[in-house]
Amino acid sequence: MNDRMIAADLQTAARRVIDACSARHLMVATAESCTGGLVVAALTEIAGSSAVVAAGFVTYSNDAKHTTLGVPLETLQQHGAVSRATALAMVDGVLTRSPVDLAVAVTGIAGPGGGSPEKPVGLVYFAAATRSGERRAKEARYGDIGRAGVRRRSVEVALAMLEEMALTYAVP
Amino acid sequence: MNDRMIAADLQTAARRVIDACSARHLMVATAESCTGGLVVAALTEIAGSSAVVAAGFVTYSNDAKHTTLGVPLETLQQHGAVSRATALAMVDGVLTRSPVDLAVAVTGIAGPGGGSPEKPVGLVYFAAATRSGERRAKEARYGDIGRAGVRRRSVEVALAMLEEMALTYAVP
Repeated sequence: MNDRMIAADLQTAARRVIDACSARHLMVATAESCTGGLVVAALTEIAGSSAVVAAGFVTYSNDAKHTTLGVPLETLQQHGAVSRATALAMVDGVLTRSPVDLAVAVTGIAGPGGGSPEKPVGLVYFAAATRSGERRAKEARYGDIGRAGVRRRSVEVALAMLEEMALTYAVP
Repeated sequence: MNDRMIAADLQTAARRVIDACSARHLMVATAESCTGGLVVAALTEIAGSSAVVAAGFVTYSNDAKHTTLGVPLETLQQHGAVSRATALAMVDGVLTRSPVDLAVAVTGIAGPGGGSPEKPVGLVYFAAATRSGERRAKEARYGDIGRAGVRRRSVEVALAMLEEMALTYAVP
């Protein structure tokens, strides 16, 4: 039986994030909705990740996005939980609540339910932000590639954003 | 390429938790240290889990255990982050912060570093609690079976505790 629960390529991507952050003494935290903890689980699979990873907030319900991360109710009502605005509010919430240098947020529709013509299954928003003031958002539309597929692709993008932000981190 | 990131047997265990909670209309949240989000990631792999899973708190650093979950600093100092007292304080913190019926907490030493003669690699504490007042704690000593092995075994135990608590949940 293989004990590993995180696929090898994701572990490689996670290791690059940990290495990039370690070299710059950056601490990281995550906010996840559709990926449900897989981003922080991939990061913490790496031995020594406790020097980099402070916390992860898995805010699956709208209530948790509001009460745990401080996403404004108006943002959730006007733009929806799966939106650029909510992703940015989630990442801002992490930086407010955790003394980290770098954070990433993911919110999307993994399916099979929950899709609509306007917001189909496979729509995912990402946001990353640094303590030094950089802030980025990204939209992806994976289509209906299956729940596991949407989650996996989303983890890949979140890890890539973290690595890029770490490599270009501007010391304040 | 296999998109699945959660092993089949863990998905089966997660599905049993989701089914047991769905049938009783119970909501769940998690607090994880050494498992780093794998428990909530396994639960949210199941389609329809958003009706059951509210949130997951991955408190990897001691600071996060204190600030995010309210684990008292005295508990961390006197008993350590890997202790029955901290696991119980983590699960209590979840029930205080999230309007769920059922919560589980995991804190341990996955290794390869961080072990000591008194608290070796593979030592893990679990706690589960319900809104209706039940509260359990458990200690496991896996020995040095590797970081991935300790994490996987710990996820199995956490899911089993959640299922058992759900099946025997006493409506208040």
